[in-house]
Amino acid sequence: MSGSLSVIGLGPGNPETLTPEAAAALEAADALYGYGPYLDRVPARAGQTRHASDNREEDARAAAALRHAAEGARVAMVSGGDPGVFAMAAAVCEQIESGDAAWRQLDVAVVPGITAMLAVAARVGAPLGHDFCAMSLSDNLKPWELIERRLAAAAGAGFVIALYNPISRARPWQLGKAFERLRQQLPPSTPVVFGRAVGREQETVLVSELEKADPSVADMATLIIVGSPMTRVIARPGRAPLVYTPRFVEDGK
Amino acid sequence: MSGSLSVIGLGPGNPETLTPEAAAALEAADALYGYGPYLDRVPARAGQTRHASDNREEDARAAAALRHAAEGARVAMVSGGDPGVFAMAAAVCEQIESGDAAWRQLDVAVVPGITAMLAVAARVGAPLGHDFCAMSLSDNLKPWELIERRLAAAAGAGFVIALYNPISRARPWQLGKAFERLRQQLPPSTPVVFGRAVGREQETVLVSELEKADPSVADMATLIIVGSPMTRVIARPGRAPLVYTPRFVEDGK
Repeated sequence: MSGSLSVIGLGPGNPETLTPEAAAALEAADALYGYGPYLDRVPARAGQTRHASDNREEDARAAAALRHAAEGARVAMVSGGDPGVFAMAAAVCEQIESGDAAWRQLDVAVVPGITAMLAVAARVGAPLGHDFCAMSLSDNLKPWELIERRLAAAAGAGFVIALYNPISRARPWQLGKAFERLRQQLPPSTPVVFGRAVGREQETVLVSELEKADPSVADMATLIIVGSPMTRVIARPGRAPLVYTPRFVEDGK
Repeated sequence: MSGSLSVIGLGPGNPETLTPEAAAALEAADALYGYGPYLDRVPARAGQTRHASDNREEDARAAAALRHAAEGARVAMVSGGDPGVFAMAAAVCEQIESGDAAWRQLDVAVVPGITAMLAVAARVGAPLGHDFCAMSLSDNLKPWELIERRLAAAAGAGFVIALYNPISRARPWQLGKAFERLRQQLPPSTPVVFGRAVGREQETVLVSELEKADPSVADMATLIIVGSPMTRVIARPGRAPLVYTPRFVEDGK
């Protein structure tokens, strides 16, 4: 079987953050699969087919790409950010495990990209400079009680927390509820960073505090970083503040 | 003040994973600072000075780079992987907060890169496909008791765990102790991925299980991913297995 599937991270969205490895893998493909707006970021190439699908169709998209690769094509699946972080690589693996046995013989490669939390963190300083965790706030794929339990465990142990998929039309209350839960454990002044569409034209970055963090600031394109009790804000005259988490923790903290 | 400091992520090490944004920032700099082996990865350019320092001298390196920038130079600080993840961006912020007030007026930018856990995850599938955390195992900057507490919290709440700085000559027992701690909570068959020098010539990737995970496999260039109870391994005839964590968790897990 000569077909292959590359699952490719496009990074935050600007071509300047697409790695040469990802650009080469996109160029080499016979067929591109992905969520429409991600596919739109990839320059057109003659002879390459495009198969756009909707946001919520990851399973069907992964299966279609695998079927196409199994026919002998070089197929590329595009993913925003990094394909391994709340994106298409896991969806592809799920289909390989449950699907046609022939799919296990395909040449499958994952090409990493700059995931949203790294892009947002870079914009404000180094909020992920110490131990941190990354969670999806979507309760489509896991129960809300588990999400609250994880938020409590992470905050209680001093992790900085990056929140993916914070809000959507179908999930309007989850982010507010998460802030409420975190306020039970973290100081009111804990820095909260909202990074929206970072790396793209519509980029906005807001630094707030947990006490007054407003969920309505966020949308589907927003990545949120909630600091730990160690996270600090450096005021700078005439410049945006820096937000960072020191590398060290003193004994007894 | 016209000086600037860019803190630049080189990614895992191969030029194919350096973003165009990072390449441009390196090219534009008057002076490069960094740990020697990272500086060695950057192509030489006429008229650009280089200031290599040792592994354990982050504070002095950050201060020297800031002083140089405050004199009006365009300074670049290079960092392996992503500068915001257990790397130089936090060290620079620490110096800005505690150092010369003029440093707060400098143009400081962080340029993200592919951090080790993304590169290692990509090599084996999608082990970080669900909620995960990233921890440094170094007890140089925080007490070991806190590290154990965080390991327990993360494993107990179902996070996949990426371990940075797992071992060094001065810290020979910490990784073994971490595996011991995790064995108290996680199934013996939990997948453990050792990724060494991923993206470079000496790359090796090993998939093991928590029960038999051998700390001596790791060195300073190794990034380790310990799965959650949900993490799965897909055997493939004639190919390395895929390791992934499904996006979904059923109710009641």
